[in-house]
Amino acid sequence: MYTRPLANLIEQLQRLPGVGPKTAQRLAMHILKRPEEDVEALAKALIDAKQQVGYCSTCHHLSADVICEICANPSRDDAAICVVSDSRDLIALEKTREYRGKYHVLGGLISPMDGIGPDQLNIQGLVRRVSSGKVLEVIMAISPSVEGETTTLYVGSLIKPFTKVTRIAFGIPMGGDLEYADEVTLAKALEGRRELDF
Amino acid sequence: MYTRPLANLIEQLQRLPGVGPKTAQRLAMHILKRPEEDVEALAKALIDAKQQVGYCSTCHHLSADVICEICANPSRDDAAICVVSDSRDLIALEKTREYRGKYHVLGGLISPMDGIGPDQLNIQGLVRRVSSGKVLEVIMAISPSVEGETTTLYVGSLIKPFTKVTRIAFGIPMGGDLEYADEVTLAKALEGRRELDF
Repeated sequence: MYTRPLANLIEQLQRLPGVGPKTAQRLAMHILKRPEEDVEALAKALIDAKQQVGYCSTCHHLSADVICEICANPSRDDAAICVVSDSRDLIALEKTREYRGKYHVLGGLISPMDGIGPDQLNIQGLVRRVSSGKVLEVIMAISPSVEGETTTLYVGSLIKPFTKVTRIAFGIPMGGDLEYADEVTLAKALEGRRELDF
Repeated sequence: MYTRPLANLIEQLQRLPGVGPKTAQRLAMHILKRPEEDVEALAKALIDAKQQVGYCSTCHHLSADVICEICANPSRDDAAICVVSDSRDLIALEKTREYRGKYHVLGGLISPMDGIGPDQLNIQGLVRRVSSGKVLEVIMAISPSVEGETTTLYVGSLIKPFTKVTRIAFGIPMGGDLEYADEVTLAKALEGRRELDF
């Protein structure tokens, strides 16, 4: 049905997450219509990203350098570390532009079901950073799933001897409707209530 | 926020149709996790498809060879030509496995609003094929939009002197609900009614 190089491209595109046969076909047809230099730029971007991007040796965020831009930035506060599961969560937090401290990326969550124990995560590096004594607060910013809670409690207990450990708030999302919130979220929102200050 | 090669990859992926910032980020993160040879295979497939795929010199279907597989296939009926707007429609028809004739891909539809006149389409080649006298039927298989109707009527009038010209049926889709069909479709379905044969 498709000429060989086109069939091959469609097959390769289908391996991407969320790309089914129809989408792969549409993407492939679009690529054939693009100028050759655009297609080469995309191919080069793929290979460059794969070859050049590794992990920051300090916080394990995705980085093309040994030390990532956040860790290397002298205007970011060394006294606070925000612990996240992966780089995507770090980027979501960065987009808020609210946080000026540093990060630590665990690289996953403790999940015995999937064979992921604490040794597979970047936990030792965090303990080393915190045990220096210069860190005044560690903010656990991990989704409240079963694995997330396990990880938060495990990591929290390891670093509690060295520093203050906090976690982000869970509750009703802004613009969210109380009526449609699930019971667990509502219970968390009640539990986390704070005094209204005027 | 993103390290340079990753930011560049996300930007390149965002140029694909239907890929927004979130999807581009998810795709890029997935690509970073894939083995290097997989990423190279995808990059190579992109470049190969772009460099090798052109158009069949006879029917203008996408092809890596001068003559496409359908035109070169001796078991396909030379006496019938099905006219479509683009290769995607050809592929949709091929998937039915109902048609054993040849095709002709116009490469678009007549659309004065977009500056596309008959000269921008592969119409002369069709007239040449049909005027040989060996083609017994030309089936117009073009979507019934304003541009589609214009194109069907224009092309049909050019080739009518040489051969029988038919068009595919429009009506209620199989499994479709009569109640929810729009008036135009329903009118077409009435107009195209056929005697029930027992």
